[in-house]
Amino acid sequence: MVVAEQLREALAEWQALLGPGHVVYEGDLLREFETATFSTSQSVPAVLRPGSREEIQECLRIANRLAVPLYIVSGGKNWGYGSRVPVRSGCAVLDLGRMNRILDFSEELAYVTVEPGVTQRQLYAFLKQHNSKLWMDASGASPDSSLIGNTVERGFGHTPYGDHFAYAAGLEVVLPTGEVIETGAAQFADCVTAPVNRWGVGPSLDGLFSQSNFGVVTRMSIHLMPEPERFEAFFYTCEAPNALPAIVDALRPLKLQELLRSAMHIANDYKVLGGLRQYPWEEAGGKTPLTPEVMSLFRRSMSFGYWNASGGIYGTPAQVSEAKRLLRKRLAHLPGKLHFVTPRLLRTAKRFAGPFKLVSGWDIRRTVELVEPVVDLMRGIPTDHALGSCYWRKRTPIPARPDPDRDGCGLLWYSPTAPAEGEKTEQLSRIAIETMLEYGFEPMISLTMLTPRIIQCVTSLTYDRDVSGEDERALDCYHELGHRCTAAGFWPYRLGIASMDGPLPNGGTGDFLGRLKALADPNGILAPGRYGIG
Amino acid sequence: MVVAEQLREALAEWQALLGPGHVVYEGDLLREFETATFSTSQSVPAVLRPGSREEIQECLRIANRLAVPLYIVSGGKNWGYGSRVPVRSGCAVLDLGRMNRILDFSEELAYVTVEPGVTQRQLYAFLKQHNSKLWMDASGASPDSSLIGNTVERGFGHTPYGDHFAYAAGLEVVLPTGEVIETGAAQFADCVTAPVNRWGVGPSLDGLFSQSNFGVVTRMSIHLMPEPERFEAFFYTCEAPNALPAIVDALRPLKLQELLRSAMHIANDYKVLGGLRQYPWEEAGGKTPLTPEVMSLFRRSMSFGYWNASGGIYGTPAQVSEAKRLLRKRLAHLPGKLHFVTPRLLRTAKRFAGPFKLVSGWDIRRTVELVEPVVDLMRGIPTDHALGSCYWRKRTPIPARPDPDRDGCGLLWYSPTAPAEGEKTEQLSRIAIETMLEYGFEPMISLTMLTPRIIQCVTSLTYDRDVSGEDERALDCYHELGHRCTAAGFWPYRLGIASMDGPLPNGGTGDFLGRLKALADPNGILAPGRYGIG
Repeated sequence: MVVAEQLREALAEWQALLGPGHVVYEGDLLREFETATFSTSQSVPAVLRPGSREEIQECLRIANRLAVPLYIVSGGKNWGYGSRVPVRSGCAVLDLGRMNRILDFSEELAYVTVEPGVTQRQLYAFLKQHNSKLWMDASGASPDSSLIGNTVERGFGHTPYGDHFAYAAGLEVVLPTGEVIETGAAQFADCVTAPVNRWGVGPSLDGLFSQSNFGVVTRMSIHLMPEPERFEAFFYTCEAPNALPAIVDALRPLKLQELLRSAMHIANDYKVLGGLRQYPWEEAGGKTPLTPEVMSLFRRSMSFGYWNASGGIYGTPAQVSEAKRLLRKRLAHLPGKLHFVTPRLLRTAKRFAGPFKLVSGWDIRRTVELVEPVVDLMRGIPTDHALGSCYWRKRTPIPARPDPDRDGCGLLWYSPTAPAEGEKTEQLSRIAIETMLEYGFEPMISLTMLTPRIIQCVTSLTYDRDVSGEDERALDCYHELGHRCTAAGFWPYRLGIASMDGPLPNGGTGDFLGRLKALADPNGILAPGRYGIG
Repeated sequence: MVVAEQLREALAEWQALLGPGHVVYEGDLLREFETATFSTSQSVPAVLRPGSREEIQECLRIANRLAVPLYIVSGGKNWGYGSRVPVRSGCAVLDLGRMNRILDFSEELAYVTVEPGVTQRQLYAFLKQHNSKLWMDASGASPDSSLIGNTVERGFGHTPYGDHFAYAAGLEVVLPTGEVIETGAAQFADCVTAPVNRWGVGPSLDGLFSQSNFGVVTRMSIHLMPEPERFEAFFYTCEAPNALPAIVDALRPLKLQELLRSAMHIANDYKVLGGLRQYPWEEAGGKTPLTPEVMSLFRRSMSFGYWNASGGIYGTPAQVSEAKRLLRKRLAHLPGKLHFVTPRLLRTAKRFAGPFKLVSGWDIRRTVELVEPVVDLMRGIPTDHALGSCYWRKRTPIPARPDPDRDGCGLLWYSPTAPAEGEKTEQLSRIAIETMLEYGFEPMISLTMLTPRIIQCVTSLTYDRDVSGEDERALDCYHELGHRCTAAGFWPYRLGIASMDGPLPNGGTGDFLGRLKALADPNGILAPGRYGIG
């Protein structure tokens, strides 16, 4: 525990270092750093806003000297996994948002080098401003989320560069002791391959600083994807609940052959509906959870399936045609419907939705609304579309400036991983759907084939924190989900702070991680408990 | 230094553990482990051959107790980088060749799980035997080289899976203390994604065990590539010495767009000639090095260029056609010649070489000889073709069973990395060519665009160890190459033992690596000095 005396002393030193305006230790801001989209009890005594690597180093040295632990937040938008809330009580938060410079950029070699405060929105604007022919990979998270924050958490997006951590290089890291190291080729002075050569020479250290509390990443190069000559999206909807294994087994070979290169995404009906509107209280007779019967009515009226697969197709026109041909062929024997969409088609559809409805009777705007944000993500355009879905169970409309933490939106993400294989994916989805329904939540799940060999499942427990008892029920469901998934061998790809209450059951590896933590952080002052370490 | 008394005691314990047949401490075999393809002075007191992970653990415990350092060799074919010779004198060698089981295999998810003794040849035979539609990525090294050995050294091959370390997952590692850890998803008992999910959850540790001496990798899953519907190879030869920047800048966008997915390879004329025949003593008037004038005669008579680029094209027939069209288009403004080759064409050419020569006067067998091993590598077929090139300067013919260590073949590889960009690649190739010529060696270099952003240059100092003074001159040249390349910012991708005489100049990162070593290996008994660590 932090002794009040030490904390006071540390605050005085941090203020002297950063200036009083960049050290907050009272008022509403602290409450914001204590608020997530689920129940937490951690208290945050202070928020520090360093403006440079040197200030981070000094903040850490002070923290060591006075034994006050620090927690790191870059964008602070880790919704569903804990927002800005530290794993343990009593940690001051080091908010890296001020360090938001884009340090280097190469159109030719297709990379950008950023500080931790650089957001998706900022990089997207930067590329536009430079008339760049490069695309970033955007995650479905807020446009204001940090690129480095998402990457060190091994978050993912929807283009061929979706596995963010695999496209990062040349980290600068401040160790908890205040020392600085660099990784890969960047560790050598004036090395010309620093931003492009992940491995460098000697041991590769990048992995140590992802999903850990071994250091503060203060710089990273991110590889970007060249804009393809042609881009189309495919959408495949299928009404048959039992078609999932066949869909996965049809898509995997295309991804393995790199005929389809994007991260392919399969959402169930609940997930789609949650992205389109708030809870249909009227149709559901005021009751929760939404029954499969009511759900099926929405599927019909809003033209989506029980399973909804999508992905981007990138290349020259000939390559895109060929990929479409193969996709048609692979999916031909399945009962669903396959559609292809281009950004241009969407623009036209929006423009002519009125006349089109008059003629055909089909309200195409609904479809556009459904697919547009997905298509945007496939071409690296950040969207705040997902934000709205946090308000699913709220009885008030989505505000103009949504803030799920502030507005009592309940969101807990549990994210187990399956092999990209039909039977196993089906088994995992069954566990997730059954568990969520059992606890009275809509079983919103998405399955992303991020590599040809694995599927990241994201289960979204979405509820209203203002309804009494829901916080507890959601956490109970979350823990039960974790228990059932790991018991069946489906370990998560990422953890929220609600899963960080103790070491992971990883035997010798865990012991080794504990010793690494003691080496990097002898006083245990950096994000104690993160990923169950320290 | 190892005290003789301790060594004797350790030998007795190792013999009791492994059986006397698996502990060798006298005779010719030790000399073999003291012999590389360049001058070394390290002595090897013993070779141990454990048959299981448990035996490795116990060998390490004994080594710790008696302070006898151990060096690790898997296939022992690290030619050009040090063969089987330890970095420091006095290390007993732990030879893992007996552990050669293929532990797991999935055609569907496209991976194989192997022990360190499994060779390229063995995996290739295994896939054939199982009628697998999967291709391995083969490195140009010996078919008898270890898959794990090459991968932990971050070696590379020639298919889209060329960056071996990026296609590995689920390591089992024995730490120098004898403890066992597992990495990625494999660290969790019964995790169903162990062989396919590189990252797992929590910090990723794989990188620590590549190019290091932090542990002994005893198991690894290797991801395999599905056989494409169609495969062709392209060969581009260009007579203009100054065309390199244009070639690199023409190919990079194709690789960036993933229109060409293979690791693209550019060899200079000396490198090609060295792959085709031994030194032309007669034509060179008995003198070395081979002058550019004589070299140009061979280019003409044997139909290759000053620069010779090649790569594989994989996909459906339509995709292959499209890639060929784009390649033609990109290279159209350059002065060279572009050819496409299929395995079938090669078979036909060999069959009809005689009549063809009668009709056309062109001896097509030469061309087949030149391209066949390259085409094999592009489709994952290991070849011992490169072995012959070690005999370049020998005056005796290549023996039926070549062994470069035994036969006094001189080979030193220095492997700097450039960004995949014309000007920088040109700068690096100039440094390499000039330095090698200056020291009297043929400047054999290859440049491999392994990712869209980096080029791995391999410079091959090939000489005859039996010629007095050559060993010294080669090492002088090697060190000068290293000095000039790193001074210009071109750091190597990999080191030979001749570059491991001290810590790398990597500042804070080096300090951290030193502390990691002390943590993993408190008694410093595992491969001391490897990559300048410990």
